[in-house]
Amino acid sequence: MTYCVGILLRDGLIFAADSRTNAGLDNIFTFRKLTKIEQPGDRFMAILTAGNLATSQAVVSMVSERLEEGTEETSLYKVPTMFGAARILGNALREVVDADGDYIRAEHADPSASFILGGQIRGRPMRLFHLYSAGNFIEATKETPFMQIGETKYGKPILDRVVEYDMPLDRGAKAALISFDSTMRSNLSVGLPLDLVVYREGALGVSHHRDIGHDNEYFHNLREDYGARLLDVFNGLPNPDID
Amino acid sequence: MTYCVGILLRDGLIFAADSRTNAGLDNIFTFRKLTKIEQPGDRFMAILTAGNLATSQAVVSMVSERLEEGTEETSLYKVPTMFGAARILGNALREVVDADGDYIRAEHADPSASFILGGQIRGRPMRLFHLYSAGNFIEATKETPFMQIGETKYGKPILDRVVEYDMPLDRGAKAALISFDSTMRSNLSVGLPLDLVVYREGALGVSHHRDIGHDNEYFHNLREDYGARLLDVFNGLPNPDID
Repeated sequence: MTYCVGILLRDGLIFAADSRTNAGLDNIFTFRKLTKIEQPGDRFMAILTAGNLATSQAVVSMVSERLEEGTEETSLYKVPTMFGAARILGNALREVVDADGDYIRAEHADPSASFILGGQIRGRPMRLFHLYSAGNFIEATKETPFMQIGETKYGKPILDRVVEYDMPLDRGAKAALISFDSTMRSNLSVGLPLDLVVYREGALGVSHHRDIGHDNEYFHNLREDYGARLLDVFNGLPNPDID
Repeated sequence: MTYCVGILLRDGLIFAADSRTNAGLDNIFTFRKLTKIEQPGDRFMAILTAGNLATSQAVVSMVSERLEEGTEETSLYKVPTMFGAARILGNALREVVDADGDYIRAEHADPSASFILGGQIRGRPMRLFHLYSAGNFIEATKETPFMQIGETKYGKPILDRVVEYDMPLDRGAKAALISFDSTMRSNLSVGLPLDLVVYREGALGVSHHRDIGHDNEYFHNLREDYGARLLDVFNGLPNPDID
């Protein structure tokens, strides 16, 4: 399985993705699910992928091949708006599923994939989209600032409680990491390493990218401390009267 | 949607269910999803239901009609073991789906339902089962003491963190209620009132049953306090270095 989250904040964008893909708990492979599209001084985009791995890799390969040779309608380097970028990604997804879908379904497998796309193009605001497997998409807003794909439910309660559009970027990154902790505790198929990308509004092509593995001291301590303090909270709340 | 949880503890059993069923957010009806089977001094069982409401109501009606007139193979009043009780419930589910399934599927609806069944029969240990829509079932153990049906994922992380077979009953009830809080915050279609039943080992037919609505002061305060303290925990944890 996969878990990816994107957060739109006033000061920037947060992207986080796990890296484990498997066809069973004893057959585990590690693949990255976060792709960056960067043109320093002009644009920054990140793509997170979930669903059929062959489909999502084909879509990312397709849009990557068209970066240089493509037009404003097909190249993420040339498209003038983030809305246009989401259209390009959705069209690539439809193209792949149109070509491969019937063959995949004939094997009783699911060809569908979904994406989170966020970024900024010079002179324009940051935008964050969730693309469905049909290639259509919805956009994050100040009121609904985060988008999730993949194994989304375990990690949603903590995001619902703490994420606000006005929170600082480091606090948003902490929220994303705790959401991953909750997901990894409840679902063995979502695992380390994580990719964490923090994009600061206006930076255009420069972002903070951290590869968080088992040796990451900050994340290790965050998980331990959060678990211990949550248990303290639980212990400190009064028990119901059951007599 | 539905969310139900059953917990097997050394000292007893905890059952909790929401009561909202709807075919859309503007068409909400309230139905109870918890049924008690009680024979004071002889046995206590509780059934929690999720899935197709017509199917689950028909299954509960069927086993209820057979309580008095049925045999050891069909009556929950007469069956000698909890394993046998789970078989009776599973067989009733298969009978209903065999009769109604094709008509329901013809309307592009899903006839399936799932159940949690727990209880105790005189002279025997407490047992807790999760029945799948195929009528087969798995059993809770000391290592895996809780079972969930319906909209299970939002409320699983907190249970994973705090539930232990050896915890006192009131603490187990608190864990179930916090799990409902997390679920209700993330999914509008799971809602109050809740049914909470606490069965004490050996009580045979006597249980604590609380109907938890919007006016329940304990649950109201639990939700407020848990939310506030969880936010304190989040605020108190160090932020990652993103520069």
